[in-house]
Amino acid sequence: MEFKNAKEARQKIREGMWTKPTPGLAYGYTQANLVVLPYKYALDFFIFCQRNTKPCPILDVCEPGKYTPIVTAPTGDIRSDIPKYRIYKNGNLVEEVTDIKKYWSEDLVSFLLGCSFTFEKALEDANIPIRHIEENKNVPMYITNIECKPAGMFNGPMVVSMRPMPKDLVQKAIDVTSRFPQVHGAPIHYGDPKKIGIEDINKPDFGDSVTIKEGEVPVFWACGVTPQAAIMRVKPDFVITHSPGHMFITDIKENDLALF
Amino acid sequence: MEFKNAKEARQKIREGMWTKPTPGLAYGYTQANLVVLPYKYALDFFIFCQRNTKPCPILDVCEPGKYTPIVTAPTGDIRSDIPKYRIYKNGNLVEEVTDIKKYWSEDLVSFLLGCSFTFEKALEDANIPIRHIEENKNVPMYITNIECKPAGMFNGPMVVSMRPMPKDLVQKAIDVTSRFPQVHGAPIHYGDPKKIGIEDINKPDFGDSVTIKEGEVPVFWACGVTPQAAIMRVKPDFVITHSPGHMFITDIKENDLALF
Repeated sequence: MEFKNAKEARQKIREGMWTKPTPGLAYGYTQANLVVLPYKYALDFFIFCQRNTKPCPILDVCEPGKYTPIVTAPTGDIRSDIPKYRIYKNGNLVEEVTDIKKYWSEDLVSFLLGCSFTFEKALEDANIPIRHIEENKNVPMYITNIECKPAGMFNGPMVVSMRPMPKDLVQKAIDVTSRFPQVHGAPIHYGDPKKIGIEDINKPDFGDSVTIKEGEVPVFWACGVTPQAAIMRVKPDFVITHSPGHMFITDIKENDLALF
Repeated sequence: MEFKNAKEARQKIREGMWTKPTPGLAYGYTQANLVVLPYKYALDFFIFCQRNTKPCPILDVCEPGKYTPIVTAPTGDIRSDIPKYRIYKNGNLVEEVTDIKKYWSEDLVSFLLGCSFTFEKALEDANIPIRHIEENKNVPMYITNIECKPAGMFNGPMVVSMRPMPKDLVQKAIDVTSRFPQVHGAPIHYGDPKKIGIEDINKPDFGDSVTIKEGEVPVFWACGVTPQAAIMRVKPDFVITHSPGHMFITDIKENDLALF
């Protein structure tokens, strides 16, 4: 199923007509990760993202209590336009919900962060295989031994997503994705997974394992799960995020995020 | 006078050996605008900058009470490494000082913002004239009729800097500066000043008037004075900024801010 634009997709999600993952919905529109935090954590989290723009590229921030992402989706509503949300208390997942209005308060600050789904279309257009799409799986994600720059109470490891490809396509993948600095940009590593602390490429920390064919190398991009990893280490008393794969669909066309 | 690198320049400034404007000091190192605000204003100001990245490109933010810009100058000290600071109370300039230690508190949040001085070297390298440098003046700056996107308590007009040049160099100037998105990037306008609300090009709101020769057109870039204009409209009870032309010199090489 696909909607004709982001606004229509958000409307259907808001009405409860779509509760599944969002990849492929509203073709060409940028999808975003959501993090909602109480005010007391917001400035430190914002600085954390500012210092680690590659894994944590901020697309939009709403002032305390506001739920309209006025930069990326002026008709959107943070509280209802995502098919599934996760509610965390003291680091523990306590509930998955399709609407967060009952949890909303004037104290909450919402962040929308770029997502690598955005550049997958550009990779496909360049004839680079997207294995997890071919195999109908979630992208494999790994916790690395690369520490993010800490900020205030937040610190954590960089999480990466991985897409395997023939070695002679790696440079093309670098070229294509470096055009998208607001959605993780160029890969941070390719080749030996151990060099970034990944012991077993077949056991991702998040998402699904995918086939790496003979002659292919794994290519690693900074991943939007990184801010969530930092949040989970800090264990704030309250956090809301999207559920994995259930993203906020913005009005920003993917190509508008390309540099050239 | 010129120092061999940013660290040496900051050291001399810290020791009180240099109290004049900084353009030309520590050749090749990025200079930054400083804004220091109490915690209660910091999140809204940060969101204001995030929504208006062209005039307000953030290079570094220090957590409340911290004065080390760990991303851009890990050996720096926000409190002493600028030759001249301005202290504002309730929107009024109350003092100019060479050190802000006596004003420092755990409640203060510091922002370093990109400055168009950074791309002037690249313009010169492309044989584009920099009139205010030729005439040994400060760059002319104007308040436009373009409103920034508001955020929380902050709102204000975009301020622009202007550099006149022969019409056939404008495209080159656009190409050169679009490589530097973190220091205002490509011009926001060129040609008729009235189209952006500037009534008299010979009467800048800040800086000095410069000669526009026969056959030249004015080219306008978003300017780092914009966040100060927004702050002055809000009149916070307390703000510290650098004094015009007296910038913070970071360890970031200007070329490191170029996209390619």
